[in-house]
Amino acid sequence: MSGSDNEAERAALARQIGEDLAKLRDTRPLVQNITNFVSMDIVANALLAAGVSPAMVHAAEELDEFGRLIGALVVNIGTLSSGWVDSMEIAARGARERGKPWVLDPVGAGATTFRTQTVLRLLEHRPSVIRGNASEILAVAAALGLEAAAARGKGVDSGNSADEAAGVAAELARRLDCTTVATGEIDVVTDGRRTLRFANGSSLMTLVTALGCSLSAITGAFCAVTDPFAAACAAVSLVGIAGEMAGEDAALPGLFRVAFIDRLASVGEADILDRLALA
Amino acid sequence: MSGSDNEAERAALARQIGEDLAKLRDTRPLVQNITNFVSMDIVANALLAAGVSPAMVHAAEELDEFGRLIGALVVNIGTLSSGWVDSMEIAARGARERGKPWVLDPVGAGATTFRTQTVLRLLEHRPSVIRGNASEILAVAAALGLEAAAARGKGVDSGNSADEAAGVAAELARRLDCTTVATGEIDVVTDGRRTLRFANGSSLMTLVTALGCSLSAITGAFCAVTDPFAAACAAVSLVGIAGEMAGEDAALPGLFRVAFIDRLASVGEADILDRLALA
Amino acid sequence: MSGSDNEAERAALARQIGEDLAKLRDTRPLVQNITNFVSMDIVANALLAAGVSPAMVHAAEELDEFGRLIGALVVNIGTLSSGWVDSMEIAARGARERGKPWVLDPVGAGATTFRTQTVLRLLEHRPSVIRGNASEILAVAAALGLEAAAARGKGVDSGNSADEAAGVAAELARRLDCTTVATGEIDVVTDGRRTLRFANGSSLMTLVTALGCSLSAITGAFCAVTDPFAAACAAVSLVGIAGEMAGEDAALPGLFRVAFIDRLASVGEADILDRLALA
Repeated sequence: MSGSDNEAERAALARQIGEDLAKLRDTRPLVQNITNFVSMDIVANALLAAGVSPAMVHAAEELDEFGRLIGALVVNIGTLSSGWVDSMEIAARGARERGKPWVLDPVGAGATTFRTQTVLRLLEHRPSVIRGNASEILAVAAALGLEAAAARGKGVDSGNSADEAAGVAAELARRLDCTTVATGEIDVVTDGRRTLRFANGSSLMTLVTALGCSLSAITGAFCAVTDPFAAACAAVSLVGIAGEMAGEDAALPGLFRVAFIDRLASVGEADILDRLALA
Repeated sequence: MSGSDNEAERAALARQIGEDLAKLRDTRPLVQNITNFVSMDIVANALLAAGVSPAMVHAAEELDEFGRLIGALVVNIGTLSSGWVDSMEIAARGARERGKPWVLDPVGAGATTFRTQTVLRLLEHRPSVIRGNASEILAVAAALGLEAAAARGKGVDSGNSADEAAGVAAELARRLDCTTVATGEIDVVTDGRRTLRFANGSSLMTLVTALGCSLSAITGAFCAVTDPFAAACAAVSLVGIAGEMAGEDAALPGLFRVAFIDRLASVGEADILDRLALA
Repeated sequence: MSGSDNEAERAALARQIGEDLAKLRDTRPLVQNITNFVSMDIVANALLAAGVSPAMVHAAEELDEFGRLIGALVVNIGTLSSGWVDSMEIAARGARERGKPWVLDPVGAGATTFRTQTVLRLLEHRPSVIRGNASEILAVAAALGLEAAAARGKGVDSGNSADEAAGVAAELARRLDCTTVATGEIDVVTDGRRTLRFANGSSLMTLVTALGCSLSAITGAFCAVTDPFAAACAAVSLVGIAGEMAGEDAALPGLFRVAFIDRLASVGEADILDRLALA
């Protein structure tokens, strides 16, 4: 679509996303999350609201057995520690071996060497989707030697616009044969050949913790019902439109968070057709 | 009560539950929770709203000393790992030795061997109450060889109705000399001799994470002020009625969760008398 | 101010706090939290709402590198375990060595020997501010031999009024050359020479978990933009006034928590000037 906002193409994409959302709610896939302590509550609630069955399972003793039950895996390195990295690696390897999709959220990549090295370790197991803010995507690309300009993020908040990151995201996607999502005011989804830019959302989303983590989890959920690129497009759209509608319901971050969960549950195919905005 | 809904018996039960609730709020027992990462926030808030003093303490170094201060213990195996299992076992043994009530929430029992074996290890310390969804109760019973038909749950969501589980729950209660609670659309409470079925609640409760965990925690709290069977009846009623009233306040899961906490704080003896529904 | 409520002094303090709040929102410091599992969600959301960039980082492998990026560190011993204590100590030592402010929240100090000893270990790295409820502050003082009367708290809820603790808090502050905050109905802030008592707040604050943890985190954030005593005064005022206004918006704890986050984001300099209450 690359820049043109041809209404027919937009509407076709919106209809496809609406169908994928219906499939998600019908199928109710089981999605395993190995995620950070900050996001556990909202990720579980966001998945439930979206119509998904979440499970937070990380013990080495049960990863293999549990991995057979799931529709998709989501690995988020937010509150990292060495024991958890081992679990993340076992789970990611298992998903890869069984041909199940998995999503990597490289929280704070570039902020410390430990994070960057953890990401490199996990990338060996080839995620279906990498979802981060623009700084994180740039940092992952830099760690792989794809881009000279390393981005050293300030914590987990993005200092680079998703737009800047688009070229790098596409190169990263081609290198790893995955879909890459770089989020910000504009969200970029690319598999290295196709690149779409999504413009829905609300500025309040940056004032609530773990909405990026929730997006990664919802991306994992969609991966259980469609291919990674379509899944990423659907997840970015659902979360962006839910955020946009929540921003119309609430002006401050406390109530906004509540409204966001409500909207994840109530956004329907018609809302997507009406509101999907490409940039 | 077994099927008859004799109004006099219902009202007598409601009055008893109302008295237990008043005792809970007067006594404000200290309840120790060794629970999962997903539920920590809502469990603490649910207990505070219900009038209880929550504490989340799991370090081996302090379990013995802290265990002397508590009114009851709640052990929830949601986000399991081996170090935590050790803590759970030490705490459960301590509670048992001191004659303090403790509640087991066997989250995801049956989903993996590690979970099932953890449950068996913990059962050696004889919980006062086991509270799970119907699938989990069936899985625990199967692990003890009580029921040929093992239930292999899909994650933590129940695939079996509480009603199906009632007979098994009663057998489990007799075997372990405890009270068993199998929740679902209908919640079953049984000590193996008496079995009550509760019908309050809201379908929205399945769309908010950790409300089952919260029920287990509130069951523990009531155990600090009355016997396990009465405690389970009171907890199921309080949570069911709070959920039912919250479902009248809110139509979607984000706001429903907020309303549920509000209702836990505001449900009074009159609400219980008006609304308690037996099935 | 010690008892007199001279309006000119109150207004001058309010204006100073307003300026510090403006500086906080302009600067948006990165605040590292090593905090408990119960509070992670609300602490992150409270910091974001207040205009701060939160990070939850505790892995030994990255503490040194991450510690160079931060404006302040907050250590909260709520859900303690030995591995986490090691991380707390490394992070506290690092902050001290780099001349960065750090805040200690001694949750449950006095309840167990393990907690008291952990606090003593951490105090060797000289926090800029210690923030606890009155029981916890008394317990810390008792552990240092400052006060014969040890306070043995019932869990994490305070059994002693902040007022009782004021003298002890001042002695503790002098001994450790830090600022001490003892919270309760009246919040005491003292550096051992100056002592201020703040009277804003709402009784609903005791019915929501981790608002004390959130206050400690916000104190850390203010430490990144002003001196520890001024930071503690600003944090106590912002949280107290946000709580007071939220208590006017909501009568029950579920909605109160939502309103509290909203108010953290919306309290302005005029609100502080209007409402700041000294006792």
